[in-house]
Amino acid sequence: MKIAMDIGGANIKIFDGNEYKQYYFPLWKKKNKFMSFLWQLTEKTDLNADMYAITMTAELCDCFKDRREGVTFILNGLKEILHSNRIFVLSNDTNFKLLDLDDAMKFPYSVASANFVATARYISKFEKNALIIDIGSTTADIIPIKDGKILAHTTDFERLKNGELIYTGVLRTNLISISNKVKFKGKNLKISAEYFANTGDVYRVLGEISENEWTTETADGKGKSIIECMRRIARTVCCDVSEGEIYETSERKSKISKADVTQIAKYFRDEQIKTINRAVERLEKKYRIKNRLIIGAGKFLYDDLNASLKYEDLSAVKALYFLTMDLQI
Amino acid sequence: MKIAMDIGGANIKIFDGNEYKQYYFPLWKKKNKFMSFLWQLTEKTDLNADMYAITMTAELCDCFKDRREGVTFILNGLKEILHSNRIFVLSNDTNFKLLDLDDAMKFPYSVASANFVATARYISKFEKNALIIDIGSTTADIIPIKDGKILAHTTDFERLKNGELIYTGVLRTNLISISNKVKFKGKNLKISAEYFANTGDVYRVLGEISENEWTTETADGKGKSIIECMRRIARTVCCDVSEGEIYETSERKSKISKADVTQIAKYFRDEQIKTINRAVERLEKKYRIKNRLIIGAGKFLYDDLNASLKYEDLSAVKALYFLTMDLQI
Repeated sequence: MKIAMDIGGANIKIFDGNEYKQYYFPLWKKKNKFMSFLWQLTEKTDLNADMYAITMTAELCDCFKDRREGVTFILNGLKEILHSNRIFVLSNDTNFKLLDLDDAMKFPYSVASANFVATARYISKFEKNALIIDIGSTTADIIPIKDGKILAHTTDFERLKNGELIYTGVLRTNLISISNKVKFKGKNLKISAEYFANTGDVYRVLGEISENEWTTETADGKGKSIIECMRRIARTVCCDVSEGEIYETSERKSKISKADVTQIAKYFRDEQIKTINRAVERLEKKYRIKNRLIIGAGKFLYDDLNASLKYEDLSAVKALYFLTMDLQI
Repeated sequence: MKIAMDIGGANIKIFDGNEYKQYYFPLWKKKNKFMSFLWQLTEKTDLNADMYAITMTAELCDCFKDRREGVTFILNGLKEILHSNRIFVLSNDTNFKLLDLDDAMKFPYSVASANFVATARYISKFEKNALIIDIGSTTADIIPIKDGKILAHTTDFERLKNGELIYTGVLRTNLISISNKVKFKGKNLKISAEYFANTGDVYRVLGEISENEWTTETADGKGKSIIECMRRIARTVCCDVSEGEIYETSERKSKISKADVTQIAKYFRDEQIKTINRAVERLEKKYRIKNRLIIGAGKFLYDDLNASLKYEDLSAVKALYFLTMDLQI
């Protein structure tokens, strides 16, 4: 048996060729609990495999001083619970290389934020010319494949610079990172800079995700019902949602209607799609690629657009597993 | 003896005419500790006054469902430790009204986010035409005074709409709310949407605030030394700060120099000033006011500009105290 694991900052994903499991684990908040969380996983998942293929993005979490510290911490944690000579770590070299644990420890920057490589390499076996648009909870990866070659840059910094990594996703993204103003009743309104609401609220209010699909936390730690989502969105313009009777003038002036909240949600949806589209179009033009492949939790953003959904259920951890099965180490 | 208190979301400020005290207390995180924190204050400050003048902005914290719940919670907390018939709460009516506790409880929206009124009313006694620019840790308030009248709107929502309240400050502001991209080596670079760094980091790196002046928390909970601030800023572009030797290619590609970090800090400083200035100029033009008065923790932003610093040490809590001393209840 082989097992693939993707250690993200917010989610740990595991695939054994059969079952796909995702666990919400915000590492930057719970660094001290990482070991005990991994131990719990051994009870929930048979981690006694012949080979573990690992990829990660969690090393960027700000509980670590730098990426070296992050990668080392994560790999040390895995080493404690898994057979260390069975651990192989995906490199961010786009040629798809798996490093053994010693090499991964020695070259931590080579295995940092590599998970996009798995997705790209797997799809490139079937699609020789395509732009993969992988919209996740936190980020959107846009990966060009041309004549069967992956043309993506390797590090997060280079991918940011080249518009291949956009820090925008459909669950965790703080609304203010999409736009620090909203168009509201014809006026540009600068919003609060607190972490009051995120994109999960927007897509709940617009009816595009269910409570269960929202796998990460809310901004205020409260629930995911529509009214709770509306309250969070209203707070970004320093308002409450008008629910019951309104008594005083200053109360009236501090409340907005549910229809207003929905308008604000739509504004952020439109702006988020614009941001992703601008990057997509730039890369399409640069590499002359026409075939869009939309995957990830946020694929619904492209429902109404002309795009192929062939690999819609593919995730980096599944791609990593499929590739590892084929591979001779 | 009289005492004025300003209950902010991040800081509680107390002035008794003699000593000014500021305590960092992030209410949205520590709602359960509010009562015990108030009890501690009775040991640190003689709260046995003839009159307590109260103002607040903390009711917007997302630990509360809405402003009514927030105001009620805060006032109930105060009622537990202070003589309730000696509590008076500032109204957001710009005519400067103090409500007794019963009325404040009955009309919670009338006392929400009122602290700017104290500053404005105090200064309006001496300056008949002025634009007050109060740059704090979290927000900037821009308050027009014309012919001795305060022309500011009353609620946060209206003040946001009219550009009188800008959610940008010199300590707590998440950099991404200032700009979701940086100009870096001639390129527009979209940055990470996480809460990785705030304006405190920028002004530490640029040498404009000391560790002691940074009274709120850092984004990662770590220290306020220059190198720690640089690491947080570097993380916004998914980089580490290059400190020691660089070994591998992918390590080199993931690191930026200290000079690069300083450039990024300058970018955010410039953008923040531009944002405030745009709002200032709009209001100057609208009301034909020429006299700028700069106050608050962020007054250093205007050091190089033509502005009066006469009231630079004024804070809302001091203004509230001075006004209350004069007042007949």
